[in-house]
Amino acid sequence: MTSVGSVVSLGQEIEEMLEWVAGFAKDPSGGVTRLLYSREWINTQEALINLMKEIQFDDAYYDEVGNAFGRLEGSKYKDQTILTGSHVDTVKNGGMYDGQYGIVAGIIALKYLKSKYGSPLRNLEVVSMVEEEGSRFPYVFLGVKNIWKMVHKQDLKDIEDEEGIKIEDAMRKAGFGFKDKPSEIRKDIKGFIEVHIEQGNVLEMEGKDIGVVTSIVGQRRFLIEVLGQSNHAGTTPMKYRKDTLHITSMIVSNIMEKAKEYAEPLVATVGKIEVIPNTSNVVPGKTIFTLDVRHTNKGILKQFTDLICEDSKKIAKNYGVDIDINMWMDEDPVPMDENIVDILKAKCNKEYINYKIMHSGAGHDSQIMAQFVPTAMIFVPSKSGISHSPLEYTDPKYLEKGVQLLIDSLYELAYKE
Amino acid sequence: MTSVGSVVSLGQEIEEMLEWVAGFAKDPSGGVTRLLYSREWINTQEALINLMKEIQFDDAYYDEVGNAFGRLEGSKYKDQTILTGSHVDTVKNGGMYDGQYGIVAGIIALKYLKSKYGSPLRNLEVVSMVEEEGSRFPYVFLGVKNIWKMVHKQDLKDIEDEEGIKIEDAMRKAGFGFKDKPSEIRKDIKGFIEVHIEQGNVLEMEGKDIGVVTSIVGQRRFLIEVLGQSNHAGTTPMKYRKDTLHITSMIVSNIMEKAKEYAEPLVATVGKIEVIPNTSNVVPGKTIFTLDVRHTNKGILKQFTDLICEDSKKIAKNYGVDIDINMWMDEDPVPMDENIVDILKAKCNKEYINYKIMHSGAGHDSQIMAQFVPTAMIFVPSKSGISHSPLEYTDPKYLEKGVQLLIDSLYELAYKE
Repeated sequence: MTSVGSVVSLGQEIEEMLEWVAGFAKDPSGGVTRLLYSREWINTQEALINLMKEIQFDDAYYDEVGNAFGRLEGSKYKDQTILTGSHVDTVKNGGMYDGQYGIVAGIIALKYLKSKYGSPLRNLEVVSMVEEEGSRFPYVFLGVKNIWKMVHKQDLKDIEDEEGIKIEDAMRKAGFGFKDKPSEIRKDIKGFIEVHIEQGNVLEMEGKDIGVVTSIVGQRRFLIEVLGQSNHAGTTPMKYRKDTLHITSMIVSNIMEKAKEYAEPLVATVGKIEVIPNTSNVVPGKTIFTLDVRHTNKGILKQFTDLICEDSKKIAKNYGVDIDINMWMDEDPVPMDENIVDILKAKCNKEYINYKIMHSGAGHDSQIMAQFVPTAMIFVPSKSGISHSPLEYTDPKYLEKGVQLLIDSLYELAYKE
Repeated sequence: MTSVGSVVSLGQEIEEMLEWVAGFAKDPSGGVTRLLYSREWINTQEALINLMKEIQFDDAYYDEVGNAFGRLEGSKYKDQTILTGSHVDTVKNGGMYDGQYGIVAGIIALKYLKSKYGSPLRNLEVVSMVEEEGSRFPYVFLGVKNIWKMVHKQDLKDIEDEEGIKIEDAMRKAGFGFKDKPSEIRKDIKGFIEVHIEQGNVLEMEGKDIGVVTSIVGQRRFLIEVLGQSNHAGTTPMKYRKDTLHITSMIVSNIMEKAKEYAEPLVATVGKIEVIPNTSNVVPGKTIFTLDVRHTNKGILKQFTDLICEDSKKIAKNYGVDIDINMWMDEDPVPMDENIVDILKAKCNKEYINYKIMHSGAGHDSQIMAQFVPTAMIFVPSKSGISHSPLEYTDPKYLEKGVQLLIDSLYELAYKE
């Protein structure tokens, strides 16, 4: 075990680096706002590149879209690279942990490993990926997708932010841009570990210090419209109503009760609702709502959503109203790599870390990465499960445990034969 | 029976006068908009006063707030007046029937009665009341309340429209204003009949031509707030959620099912809902919704609302969330005058009018009037129950029946000993 007990207050070092990274993008209206290719974003990536040069990584470089890599050269297997890191962008008024913690953890881990063990056998890299949240442009996973050449110049042609600025123009202004001839897909990357805050309350509720992620959920998202008739609240007898909020209430109750009956990890959420005309003395003639269903098993996800769609149609039909159910997202669950998960578990067991085998209910860069290379994730607890908020917080003792586990597993992957 | 069969196309005359009245307040964005003391409103009241002078009513005059009266002097009982009419104001983008039909009906009825029978024994008046809808200022029933001196200068002191214009200033600019010494309450008014569109779909659904109103519903209105916890839709297991939209759905379903179980005329409406943060991938931490319950029986109204408030609290408690139920309106039902209702019924029976004895689920000037003098209402069908909309429509054959019944009953009240 490569114990970092010798490093004075690793937790403090992590916190200080997180504060430093957040300092480039403090939002006057609260929290951290680091939107893709903004001034704050540029300043942060530049600072990270400079830091990685200062602490004498063997290389620190950008790719064409602005992913910032720091590298320790392998002494033996020069065509093999182990990668860690996460995304540098945030939501508007986000926290200082989501994404950034994975980058800070990677930099500190590489720095520690180099100072303690010198060069690894395989190359070790940390990446600060340009974007994962889709907060500025209606496009997600730009960073990881560029690593795997899943995104091309023409894919981004029509993508603009709310102010009508094209993503390509923003990219060019930040100093980046696609080459006419795309660069080759990297064949050297042999594994990826992402450290991330949980963004949920499971670890906290169960008193666990670390989550070892075995899969990322699949998601099905729907927009559902119930169409009845608007009527005067006083003059329309109950029997003549086609009250879409009443029917929506029955549909939502049914979905939630069924979701609770299903075994974990199924989750179903109706987060957004619009009622028309939304006036206290008018029977709502139209109700539109979102439905977000997630599960780690593709078959169960399909089975459950088929069931509740059927139920919802029946409820609407019984009450004589129209319903339109539009599934606009259908993403499969992504399993993590068994070998890396085993390494993480073994390290936790050896160090008596109070960990939990769990899934990720949120999407992460790792779900794209896992399609190309063995990938795993380490979670640390989020206080009260809060994320995407200035209130996002993780206790330094957990930040430290996450980094220790990362160091140990990177050592296993990059320093051992 | 004072048949108006001799008048050529009474329905057409009514329609034409409605079109003429609407012509002063056509809204370029659709329908009729005649907000209190607006230019459109002033033009309409002036035109009505002028019309009533032209057709040689014995008097046409305003009171201090701008209610416009037309009068036929009684030949015998000069201290007794029978009044008819309704409100001249509309909602924004309203129709050309709500309120206005009652004024037009009254003018045509008085004109007909005078031409056919000369002066009545008792005075007959028609009033175009200034306001009932509360569409411009947060104040309702200004017209009828001024007739009964229920409103005083100081009550209106702080009342402003959305642009910050004080109601008193708007009143003064329109040429009206409270006297320093309030005028006396009129003691001469002995009865009131209001003709109005139903604003619901009961008459249409049941194939009836006329509604004779026996009471106006009491109303209880609530603002209900359910307070749980916002959480990430993916990372929060169902068991750890305090999903306020789920709980609201159960509460609303329960209210609606119970409301349907209760006998008519109970109606319950949840017309407006606000979910916070209203984002598809966040469990709603807060939901606020309105509840509007109406019944013609005060005891049943209380019993039902007490029951569902208890139920709602239980549901919230079972799910471990807080609920705040705020009743901000509690208006008693208002019965109509039995004698006038009997006159209306007798006339309908005699003329084989296909009528329905019914309540009003909406509020009307008559509910204030009934607190002071014997009052009744005549309803005509609203196409598809639509009101407060440019689509508001009543077939001329019903408009005609409503006026005929008004003429007959005013004859009974003002021309007979």
